[in-house]
Amino acid sequence: MSQLRQDPTTREWVIIAPGRAVRPHDPPRVERARLPARDPACPFCPGNEERTPPEIMRVGNGSGWRVRVVPNLFPAVSPDGEPRRAADGVFGRMEGVGAHEVIVESPRHDARIDEMAEDEVEDVLGVWRRRYQALEREPWARSVVLFKNFGATAGTSLVHTHSQVVAIPVHGPEDLRRHSVALRYFDDTGRSVYDDLRDAEVRQGERVVAEVGSMVSFAPFASRAPFETWILPARHRSSFARVDDGELADLARALREVLRALREAAGDPDFNIVVTSGPAADRDQPHFTWHVRVLPRLATAAGFELGSGMSINTVAPEDAAARMRESLDRARTAAR
Amino acid sequence: MSQLRQDPTTREWVIIAPGRAVRPHDPPRVERARLPARDPACPFCPGNEERTPPEIMRVGNGSGWRVRVVPNLFPAVSPDGEPRRAADGVFGRMEGVGAHEVIVESPRHDARIDEMAEDEVEDVLGVWRRRYQALEREPWARSVVLFKNFGATAGTSLVHTHSQVVAIPVHGPEDLRRHSVALRYFDDTGRSVYDDLRDAEVRQGERVVAEVGSMVSFAPFASRAPFETWILPARHRSSFARVDDGELADLARALREVLRALREAAGDPDFNIVVTSGPAADRDQPHFTWHVRVLPRLATAAGFELGSGMSINTVAPEDAAARMRESLDRARTAAR
Repeated sequence: MSQLRQDPTTREWVIIAPGRAVRPHDPPRVERARLPARDPACPFCPGNEERTPPEIMRVGNGSGWRVRVVPNLFPAVSPDGEPRRAADGVFGRMEGVGAHEVIVESPRHDARIDEMAEDEVEDVLGVWRRRYQALEREPWARSVVLFKNFGATAGTSLVHTHSQVVAIPVHGPEDLRRHSVALRYFDDTGRSVYDDLRDAEVRQGERVVAEVGSMVSFAPFASRAPFETWILPARHRSSFARVDDGELADLARALREVLRALREAAGDPDFNIVVTSGPAADRDQPHFTWHVRVLPRLATAAGFELGSGMSINTVAPEDAAARMRESLDRARTAAR
Repeated sequence: MSQLRQDPTTREWVIIAPGRAVRPHDPPRVERARLPARDPACPFCPGNEERTPPEIMRVGNGSGWRVRVVPNLFPAVSPDGEPRRAADGVFGRMEGVGAHEVIVESPRHDARIDEMAEDEVEDVLGVWRRRYQALEREPWARSVVLFKNFGATAGTSLVHTHSQVVAIPVHGPEDLRRHSVALRYFDDTGRSVYDDLRDAEVRQGERVVAEVGSMVSFAPFASRAPFETWILPARHRSSFARVDDGELADLARALREVLRALREAAGDPDFNIVVTSGPAADRDQPHFTWHVRVLPRLATAAGFELGSGMSINTVAPEDAAARMRESLDRARTAAR
């Protein structure tokens, strides 16, 4: 029998239906092309810096850069123009004003976050925080969407490791929904629903993947996708723009662990990473907690998902978390 | 420059960004395996009726059936059990009660709706209506999701032409959103937002694909996907359960035309079809209009879409509709 579960952060129901997959726990391993350490044709490789639009920032000096930020060559939105609304009856529109940046996460063509050194991942996350802070301050920005696509089914066209940040002049529907549920929950309880979810997951324990310093990772009770994993700070903090260096270092370790566990336990699937943050504000907002979601692409959204807005997940998060913990335990034993 | 457009039926913004695709208007043609008229290994082919769970209904007699409805062999939800809620702090759940049925649309293994005869498509739509009516009456049913997946990237595992219907004991988030926007619009204006959108599309004309009897098809102003096409009744009617036979015949023709145009103009892409209906009610509800959406799978939802809930569409609906109209004109000229 399948089970319907409600995600307290969106109030949306998910169908957990392990019976629908023949071998739900054991996805086939994705075959990945072996990449060279440098590809002369890759616009993100050192030596090809002039093939990207003018650089926004870098970490490291000269040709020895470690992380680079450049505008997306095919931007969905761009900084020119005015986000003025125009309406013609039911048709509302505005110019595509915004920012669309690419964060090249390593000079190495064959780098992957789960294989990078801890300080290399910290460099990347430090850039995420800086670009988040900078874009959130743009007067027209209403949502800042920070994400990473890994693999073709997750929407990547370039294999050189990179993430992206998009700032837009409207609240994305996901932001609107999450913030409205979180505000309502705060008014009802005086707490952040994310903090309460994290504490309940830690208390139950069976869906926890790892606790790494000030970070907790778990496969949430109402996971929409097989092996979906969230990372939350153990102590409340509303905005990703305000994480401190200690948290950033712990997040780097936690993210690396989650991605390693996912690779081992779920057959190295394609995935997306999404960073979701509370609103820009001078002071911490008690109703929202920033968090990172790792969303593996092991299932295809079909007509049911498009029509209902609900997901069918064929792997119970309890099983996913157990498998991920086992991989981490095996790796720790092997390293001894 | 890209443009942000607001869908009046969801109030969600979409980014229309033709500049992001190198050849946005001319997707590569999907290579499809040539299918035999009958496949002995196919559970949906005549002669293999015992390989499906016990039949729910059929059109036609004996071995000469034309359409068959059977329970899904791997159901996401099932009719046994009670949709009782249980809550443990932030964790809300209930048993996966519901119905999950498969509609085998033709005895022919190689049939496709765009190649079927008009009366064959009418038979299929008549079954959609009957199953919709039946499931909507289940006391536990809150949402009935009627859909079709065509092609692997749209989530099909079996190629024999079929659609599905799922009834669930909660309101899917898409239903909640669409109905709440439609109720608010009605309270503000006294009209259905779908009727107003259809009338505005017909008035502007450039996104209309075809007007077929009592049905209008168009690529909506704020299309989320390249070549997305909606079919609406020309006269208001809230529930798909209440379409009359004349409307059903026109819908069969309209759907066939849209799928033919899509095949020619967009390279025979994979697609989903979703039927969305107003609430079950004794009388027509003025705030909602049933409609059919054809959603081609020409793009991959990536981290931006998952994180923001917004879509980036690289084909302007004006261009998509013009291409689809041209294909239909060419086909009509060739048929003369």
